[in-house]
Amino acid sequence: MLAFSGGLDTCFCAAWLKEKGYGVAAVTVDTGGFVAGELEKIKERALAAGAAEHVTLDGRDKVFSRFVAYLIKGNVLRGRVYPLSVSAERVVQAELVAAFARKAGAQAVAHGSTAAGNDQFRFDGVFQALCPDLQVLAPIRELGWTRAQETAYLKERGLEIPAKTAAYSVNAGLWGVTVGGKETHDPWAEVPESAYPEPTEKAVDPVSIAIGFERGLPVSLNGEAMGGVRLVEKLNALGRSYGLGRGIHLGDTVLGIKGRIAFEAPAPVLLIAAHRELEKLTLTRWQQFWKDHMAEFYGQLLHEGLPFEPAMRDIEAMMDSSQEAVTGDARLKLSPGHFEVTGVRSPNGLMESRAAYGETTSLWSAQDAAGFARIHALPMVLANARRGEE
Amino acid sequence: MLAFSGGLDTCFCAAWLKEKGYGVAAVTVDTGGFVAGELEKIKERALAAGAAEHVTLDGRDKVFSRFVAYLIKGNVLRGRVYPLSVSAERVVQAELVAAFARKAGAQAVAHGSTAAGNDQFRFDGVFQALCPDLQVLAPIRELGWTRAQETAYLKERGLEIPAKTAAYSVNAGLWGVTVGGKETHDPWAEVPESAYPEPTEKAVDPVSIAIGFERGLPVSLNGEAMGGVRLVEKLNALGRSYGLGRGIHLGDTVLGIKGRIAFEAPAPVLLIAAHRELEKLTLTRWQQFWKDHMAEFYGQLLHEGLPFEPAMRDIEAMMDSSQEAVTGDARLKLSPGHFEVTGVRSPNGLMESRAAYGETTSLWSAQDAAGFARIHALPMVLANARRGEE
Amino acid sequence: MLAFSGGLDTCFCAAWLKEKGYGVAAVTVDTGGFVAGELEKIKERALAAGAAEHVTLDGRDKVFSRFVAYLIKGNVLRGRVYPLSVSAERVVQAELVAAFARKAGAQAVAHGSTAAGNDQFRFDGVFQALCPDLQVLAPIRELGWTRAQETAYLKERGLEIPAKTAAYSVNAGLWGVTVGGKETHDPWAEVPESAYPEPTEKAVDPVSIAIGFERGLPVSLNGEAMGGVRLVEKLNALGRSYGLGRGIHLGDTVLGIKGRIAFEAPAPVLLIAAHRELEKLTLTRWQQFWKDHMAEFYGQLLHEGLPFEPAMRDIEAMMDSSQEAVTGDARLKLSPGHFEVTGVRSPNGLMESRAAYGETTSLWSAQDAAGFARIHALPMVLANARRGEE
Amino acid sequence: MLAFSGGLDTCFCAAWLKEKGYGVAAVTVDTGGFVAGELEKIKERALAAGAAEHVTLDGRDKVFSRFVAYLIKGNVLRGRVYPLSVSAERVVQAELVAAFARKAGAQAVAHGSTAAGNDQFRFDGVFQALCPDLQVLAPIRELGWTRAQETAYLKERGLEIPAKTAAYSVNAGLWGVTVGGKETHDPWAEVPESAYPEPTEKAVDPVSIAIGFERGLPVSLNGEAMGGVRLVEKLNALGRSYGLGRGIHLGDTVLGIKGRIAFEAPAPVLLIAAHRELEKLTLTRWQQFWKDHMAEFYGQLLHEGLPFEPAMRDIEAMMDSSQEAVTGDARLKLSPGHFEVTGVRSPNGLMESRAAYGETTSLWSAQDAAGFARIHALPMVLANARRGEE
Repeated sequence: MLAFSGGLDTCFCAAWLKEKGYGVAAVTVDTGGFVAGELEKIKERALAAGAAEHVTLDGRDKVFSRFVAYLIKGNVLRGRVYPLSVSAERVVQAELVAAFARKAGAQAVAHGSTAAGNDQFRFDGVFQALCPDLQVLAPIRELGWTRAQETAYLKERGLEIPAKTAAYSVNAGLWGVTVGGKETHDPWAEVPESAYPEPTEKAVDPVSIAIGFERGLPVSLNGEAMGGVRLVEKLNALGRSYGLGRGIHLGDTVLGIKGRIAFEAPAPVLLIAAHRELEKLTLTRWQQFWKDHMAEFYGQLLHEGLPFEPAMRDIEAMMDSSQEAVTGDARLKLSPGHFEVTGVRSPNGLMESRAAYGETTSLWSAQDAAGFARIHALPMVLANARRGEE
Repeated sequence: MLAFSGGLDTCFCAAWLKEKGYGVAAVTVDTGGFVAGELEKIKERALAAGAAEHVTLDGRDKVFSRFVAYLIKGNVLRGRVYPLSVSAERVVQAELVAAFARKAGAQAVAHGSTAAGNDQFRFDGVFQALCPDLQVLAPIRELGWTRAQETAYLKERGLEIPAKTAAYSVNAGLWGVTVGGKETHDPWAEVPESAYPEPTEKAVDPVSIAIGFERGLPVSLNGEAMGGVRLVEKLNALGRSYGLGRGIHLGDTVLGIKGRIAFEAPAPVLLIAAHRELEKLTLTRWQQFWKDHMAEFYGQLLHEGLPFEPAMRDIEAMMDSSQEAVTGDARLKLSPGHFEVTGVRSPNGLMESRAAYGETTSLWSAQDAAGFARIHALPMVLANARRGEE
Repeated sequence: MLAFSGGLDTCFCAAWLKEKGYGVAAVTVDTGGFVAGELEKIKERALAAGAAEHVTLDGRDKVFSRFVAYLIKGNVLRGRVYPLSVSAERVVQAELVAAFARKAGAQAVAHGSTAAGNDQFRFDGVFQALCPDLQVLAPIRELGWTRAQETAYLKERGLEIPAKTAAYSVNAGLWGVTVGGKETHDPWAEVPESAYPEPTEKAVDPVSIAIGFERGLPVSLNGEAMGGVRLVEKLNALGRSYGLGRGIHLGDTVLGIKGRIAFEAPAPVLLIAAHRELEKLTLTRWQQFWKDHMAEFYGQLLHEGLPFEPAMRDIEAMMDSSQEAVTGDARLKLSPGHFEVTGVRSPNGLMESRAAYGETTSLWSAQDAAGFARIHALPMVLANARRGEE
Repeated sequence: MLAFSGGLDTCFCAAWLKEKGYGVAAVTVDTGGFVAGELEKIKERALAAGAAEHVTLDGRDKVFSRFVAYLIKGNVLRGRVYPLSVSAERVVQAELVAAFARKAGAQAVAHGSTAAGNDQFRFDGVFQALCPDLQVLAPIRELGWTRAQETAYLKERGLEIPAKTAAYSVNAGLWGVTVGGKETHDPWAEVPESAYPEPTEKAVDPVSIAIGFERGLPVSLNGEAMGGVRLVEKLNALGRSYGLGRGIHLGDTVLGIKGRIAFEAPAPVLLIAAHRELEKLTLTRWQQFWKDHMAEFYGQLLHEGLPFEPAMRDIEAMMDSSQEAVTGDARLKLSPGHFEVTGVRSPNGLMESRAAYGETTSLWSAQDAAGFARIHALPMVLANARRGEE
């Protein structure tokens, strides 16, 4: 059972595994980001490369409900910028392949990862957890082959070589597109506009949109109720037309070295900003402080391919609890290249009409405030007094 | 000794304290943000309102070295957006007034805060810590008077009433401008363009700039070495011409209620983004994880007016240690309304030429990676196995 | 509606409030720690002091299920030693009094706290949250009277003065006894044996006991199933006979000054040690790391009288999730003055028979371990290499 | 250059490496715990087993100043009980061997760790960091041999086989003794008294001792100034005579499985308790909260053999800063099987004579306290009010 993306690596794996005597069943998990007709082409390519059969599984809802929901609830932006576009998708791909392999009675599961990236850990980890009795094959990692060697191997055998679509290695999915190659290897090099996927349309005039949330999850766009996957897809298209959600992520790989990629993730960036501002209206400061800190660690566990670590369940429980009051709307204004959250409202808002900050209040008296000031400062006053005495 | 900003509140305090028989010495601490000639006018206003003398103290370097330096090192953006523009300034104002009061042998220190805002805690806290033997007066808080009452009081006595410069209450300083009033009181209301200070010039064409850092602090702009205060002032002017650094902050006040303000802080937003990206190249993931978490708490202590809390010293020591390797350059591209950090470089960079992420590596073998994958996932694999056994 | 403990302070309050014209209903909440007949005497004392009526409410189950359950799940020992004996009880007392006051249509609620301790914040906070429309009275705080003044007041009116039972101020409850006074005010002074409640029996021979847990909560003692309250009471009696669970707590009060008390809390100390060791067998390291950290903060919120802070609900949700696998037994050996947890077992244990630590393993190979070693150390190796290059 | 402890494993390594053609230089690093004459015997054994030369290096001061100092400052007890006895010692052993190997121009460094324990990661990690150009040999891990196989190998060649001193595998050092084997492999099994090292003398009568601290480090015992190593050795001997500092540690190994050991570490347990109580008198609550949390993570990094992770330096800087005021004395009362900290005192103590907790105060008024109570509770009051409105 081969996790099959249709790129050079997995085409090579299909061919190589077949030649080694394996009966190859290729599974492509749709975690979003495919253009029309692309899945059909992938199927053809799998069969051409040597797979005895090919199946496409729709993993988009699972990506949303199992991980994206918590990446939103936790406002998870790795390094404050990157919405962890790839890890959730790769984990769900591995999970669905593993489940399918068990059901189909497969004897081995295979993936096309190299020894140099994060994905191997996501596949290996999930496979070890979900189908520990099956053999795990990672032909390219084991051979240590380069893309040139893979190409040569396929060529020799007269097999189709996936056209390199661009100068960059692109990974497109529900929660964003990542782009690697060329300039991304040098932290000082600017990634050109051309590295990003070309938008099908370009918006010029600013627009205001409203996103409705229920218990921390987006449930409507401009008043129209819709499911998470559809809402994300719509926001991705809209945001892309404004050139939003682009950035560079320089971060720590599972391997401990630094990696750098460009990304375009309009929906994640818009949704997290909207959600975060709505939380500011509805959560206490300690709820925000701890939830976001725990969520950052949550993102790290997911990034590192540890989706069955029980601590993730504990943090999810904390996040779920925190979202009880996060119901309401956020309004965003999109302009070419930038956006802002212009307003939030909630039936559970904690912004008090009885106390306009800085102006008037009926919640406490001047004496209360002065008394609070005195006791609030007491520990630092006592600690500071000590300095004089020394 | 009255902390004097020259606005309605402190003019009223000067007049009222004089009428109560106090000899009023007014002190204005320059923490940035004044336009040419403004400080002179403030002096005149102080004397006109009833102060027997007036002194201006330059607190800009202290604001930078004592707090802004750590807000940069810690990438402190409250609620992920707001660079804590006011608290550092207010604390330094209080500190300089307290020190001056002790030196001058004053018997009381006074501030113009109301009972409804954060500033009272910054003044009270610092005064209690630095001059616990002096009486602390906060006439407006004690009287509970509104701005209308203060105006009437001054009018009756034929005293000058500071012209309300705008429909908003504006606080301008080195680390940003905040704007409160009208729309800011309703979290759903959009704050209009007109609420922000009007830029003196407007830039249209994108520009790339380079900021040089040494041990975490900015030391040069486009190759020209300069001190922190000057660099911040230059970046503020440049960023403002592109409309950068604006935002809305909805946050938790010291009083426990929510407050909302608009802000324009180009230099802080640019510097923190530049610094953060340089850190990604030079710090390990655990350094970043903990330092930023501690820095968020640091920001909270500062926000709450607790600058002498010894925990702040401990966190500063941690931050200083973490910055040892944060030397290098960040390049930013500014465009109208948005900017990006397009590249970073450092002699201490941890991005390895021996291992291009995702492509090749000489730092470990395929076997190493597979072994790491196995043991890395072991805790979750064992924990997950348990679920099957139950 | 007066929260009535039967001590000097609340007797005074009853008398004083009656004299001021209030109709006083006294409520005593039983949160454990009463000896036989004590509650009856308290009732008599309330009526004698001036209360028109007196009610006793049993709050022990609520103390256990609402807070003690989480203090166990979170292994909460403040300052690593003190099981927060008082705060949970005081909060439940305030909650039951507030609920009863609302039901009874009372117009005010009263408590006997002074201005110098933590309890005022627990009463005030809960009353503000649960009955914000009722007046809150704290006569002793308002008057600023000493115990001598209260005694004189009662004496003048010929009212009974509660016999000072000892040289110390003692607070006894389900989750422990605290002792304050005399030596506790000087951090260098040793608290004598005589300050602690005298045990009714003294055990000499060591005994082994087994505590059974289900999802993190104790459910049986030596194989006999029993409810939480009964189990705690039995363990308190047993532990006290061995002189266990005593200690000194020097900690930070809500007021920001330091406070010091002696305590005797055998059941809390035994249960938390047993639970903690069972967790080590059943939780992953990250579950333990984060849960215990969050639980420490949880304890702080409870200590500070903030039981309705929503962050407490979030942390409880996290703790509940973490306890899913914490089912099994802990065996403890009690001796005079000390005890140890000698063994733990669980159907969900993560101690692997397939890999004896340090000896043999079938879960990974030598190559896996060497590979893990290489990549595990990589970030520090790269960071360290930099030092040489500088 | 072979790290040589003199046990079966390292004797085998010496013999095996010699047979493979290596010129073996054996290095024994004294990190404490050796009885008189033991180091001489180890030297003989090294030469007998095949080493061409043998050197003993004293690493005790380095263990103390480099790690133990921070384990004290951070109150590091893994799982709340275990003072990390082994990791600091193993890391220093690896560091001194690596430094010596570089100086001596060795071509390879070797250690006797198996694939099943934590030590391999400490040796491998330090060797990779400090002598990345040298080959690292771990013969037993590579061969996967059992102790029986090693014994047979030595027997065949007529080489001395270290007498198995006991039924347990014992590791003795400055910071404690650990005991593994037999009962430790079963979490339910009680570890018998006989597993621990037999004390040379047994104390019966309680004794009070005073430990003096300067900036967080112990500097005197009962008024006699002494260096850290000597103080630890004296406290170990004294504490052992009372049977103190024993415990069971069930924890997470670097490999992700659970491991269980018994330990006896009197000095660490006494010193950490003494230090912790002195901190309670001299640090603010936030200092304690964060420092101890960071220190727990510090302990984890050390445990995992990552002593060059720069985050450890950052945390050390934080700990150092926090200890500025931790000067004073702690008095402990030792009895057979248990001890207590009976008092602490410090010129920097924060326990205020102006405010006896719970009794009187001149630091704030009743009105201040009531005002503080109101505003302190405000966030939870507002959040709770919401529940009623829903």
